[in-house]
Amino acid sequence: MKEVVRSAHLPRGFKFSAVSCGIKASGRLDLGLVEATPGTTATAVFTRNRVVAAPVEAGRAALVSSRGRLRAVVVNSGNANCATGKPGLRACQRISRELAGLLHVPQEQVFPSSTGIIGVRLPVEKILAKLPALKDAAEPAGIAAFAQAIMTTDTRPKLASACFHAGKHEVRVLGVAKGSGMIHPQMATMLVYLFTDAAGTPSQLKQILRRVCDATFNCISVDGDTSTNDTVLLMASGQSGARLTDAHTTDKFENSVCDVCQDLSQQIVCDGEGVQHVIHLHVTHAKTREEALRIARAIANSCLVKTAWAGADPNWGRILAAVGSSGIPLDPNRISIWIADQMVCRGGVSCDFDEEKAHQALSEPRCKLQIALQRGTASAQFLATDLTADYVRINADYST
Amino acid sequence: MKEVVRSAHLPRGFKFSAVSCGIKASGRLDLGLVEATPGTTATAVFTRNRVVAAPVEAGRAALVSSRGRLRAVVVNSGNANCATGKPGLRACQRISRELAGLLHVPQEQVFPSSTGIIGVRLPVEKILAKLPALKDAAEPAGIAAFAQAIMTTDTRPKLASACFHAGKHEVRVLGVAKGSGMIHPQMATMLVYLFTDAAGTPSQLKQILRRVCDATFNCISVDGDTSTNDTVLLMASGQSGARLTDAHTTDKFENSVCDVCQDLSQQIVCDGEGVQHVIHLHVTHAKTREEALRIARAIANSCLVKTAWAGADPNWGRILAAVGSSGIPLDPNRISIWIADQMVCRGGVSCDFDEEKAHQALSEPRCKLQIALQRGTASAQFLATDLTADYVRINADYST
Repeated sequence: MKEVVRSAHLPRGFKFSAVSCGIKASGRLDLGLVEATPGTTATAVFTRNRVVAAPVEAGRAALVSSRGRLRAVVVNSGNANCATGKPGLRACQRISRELAGLLHVPQEQVFPSSTGIIGVRLPVEKILAKLPALKDAAEPAGIAAFAQAIMTTDTRPKLASACFHAGKHEVRVLGVAKGSGMIHPQMATMLVYLFTDAAGTPSQLKQILRRVCDATFNCISVDGDTSTNDTVLLMASGQSGARLTDAHTTDKFENSVCDVCQDLSQQIVCDGEGVQHVIHLHVTHAKTREEALRIARAIANSCLVKTAWAGADPNWGRILAAVGSSGIPLDPNRISIWIADQMVCRGGVSCDFDEEKAHQALSEPRCKLQIALQRGTASAQFLATDLTADYVRINADYST
Repeated sequence: MKEVVRSAHLPRGFKFSAVSCGIKASGRLDLGLVEATPGTTATAVFTRNRVVAAPVEAGRAALVSSRGRLRAVVVNSGNANCATGKPGLRACQRISRELAGLLHVPQEQVFPSSTGIIGVRLPVEKILAKLPALKDAAEPAGIAAFAQAIMTTDTRPKLASACFHAGKHEVRVLGVAKGSGMIHPQMATMLVYLFTDAAGTPSQLKQILRRVCDATFNCISVDGDTSTNDTVLLMASGQSGARLTDAHTTDKFENSVCDVCQDLSQQIVCDGEGVQHVIHLHVTHAKTREEALRIARAIANSCLVKTAWAGADPNWGRILAAVGSSGIPLDPNRISIWIADQMVCRGGVSCDFDEEKAHQALSEPRCKLQIALQRGTASAQFLATDLTADYVRINADYST
């Protein structure tokens, strides 16, 4: 991890820290802070679950009332502060107010996040007691500890970075994420924090973040379950001197953010709960990208397909059945399926293939599957995972 | 099983038999026959998966061209005859033609069914070779062997029956089913054959069967996967002398069919692959029954909820998150949840409850969960199952 941080492109204008405040019984790091330089702009994408946690409500409100300016982010793991009613919202407010006082910044420029168990009251006093220590520890290299403090069932911290040159300026983009279970497409997935020293207005950042999320975090799935706390936050300090004024710089910036998010997406999927095989789904020849994504999700969420992957079983009939139940009015007789580079189904019908070779391909940690629909020219790529007995074990005793 | 058959109400006008034709490598029964008396009417409900097996196409066509008259049903297990193209359809036709010749009945009055692996060519010769033996063995008590011949991953045969009096006539209803995995709501589930000696026109039977399926087989889920071969067939021999002419008899008949289907639904869920806990979901105070069912399905198909049930974990936060991602625009602050008779969440917020007692309730083979939405007066009941490591094991090596 230290090596990763040493080689990471750390954007100027941000400091990080983490402490253990006692929410996690294990004593591991469970409280993190991001401190941003004055003038930092920000935007965020949140869960589309109707049930949202208190910090999601509070974070959304903060971005509105601060008009997209942020000076700090405070995150706890081990408790989602969700389904906690008004006391949950008051807890967020107390933490933001206290931290704002310590940092001498407006309260609405503090962004709160939480992740962990749902329905248990947030132990506010434990958090408040540690805010001064958190503030004192903040430094640019603190990102390593911060990445650990936001983990729940993750087995490793997730960090990615990129940099590009805009004229004489070097722009850096850094992302940190947590996520392992409750990973479902169609929304910003889990907690992701993106930092850059480019300068952009909140509305510029917003448009870029939406497009990037659609192409990255919305194209992965671990278990088809949608979190109540999903948040992707992008903060821009402007400290590099580069501004998102010309199209060339903006494109380069969007590509860098996209690279970082793509990298984090893959890290999240590879660290998915109990995951042994990651499947790169490529749905081609669809009428629209939306249609291709819907079919990818139907495959990625099928228990029978996922368990077949767990056994490296080239049972493509289950994939065909999942495609057939996706709700798209397609003609099964035009569907073809490839496992790695081998065609296993042509026009909805079995074709001769080397089963052992297909089994070997599926036994690798990563395998490509293509599904061609012969309906049009659109396509989508999607990262899916197998469903293993380990996933069941991890989730059969989470709270008890 | 013999005891069950001895006490079952066997409708007059039907004979059954089963043989082993060698499709199942185990040598178990894998080919079954139903022979019906002349004048028997019939109707069926099929899978809504876009990918349908050849026998589903052939069976649907038979009912159309025979105008709802059937004299025989021939079912094989071990091979779904799906994704087998034109040869698959020709295989169905050859079997129906050969059997029609043996029984001296019109070919279009033979109804074919298949269940098992997808994408493997049906071994027609093996089936044809055993048709004479199948014909010779047919007898009313053959239902026990027939129930075994249609099994795949089922651990036990599934049979239910009912009887009622209509004037001087005693009407009998018998049902036999197979199903354990690929069980998903919103369609007729797996293979179910219903027999009665009441007399009804195909259109009378059709209306009754649709309503009954909506209330029974469409309210269960094992793994959220939809089979390509789902079929529910209802056959009426008329041999009891009772006709579905008056409303009183028709109501009694529909209730009996519903009782039998409800019983079979429960048997399918209890025998679900790897299932250790069956959960009776009761979604109440919804705006419409459709809305209540959609929420029930969102809960029943959530991997995280299902794994919590596997661990008898009273983690109601996962249920709330699943409800929130159902797509219904509901207010989370009005949702209440009960585990058995204990309220665990009131108005979207945790309430004090005895966790050990809730854990105990969920440890039972069956447990009731209620989710109240405070949106209206509609409700729905739904049978769901847990997701265990055994389910993964069963399905990680099915074909290889």
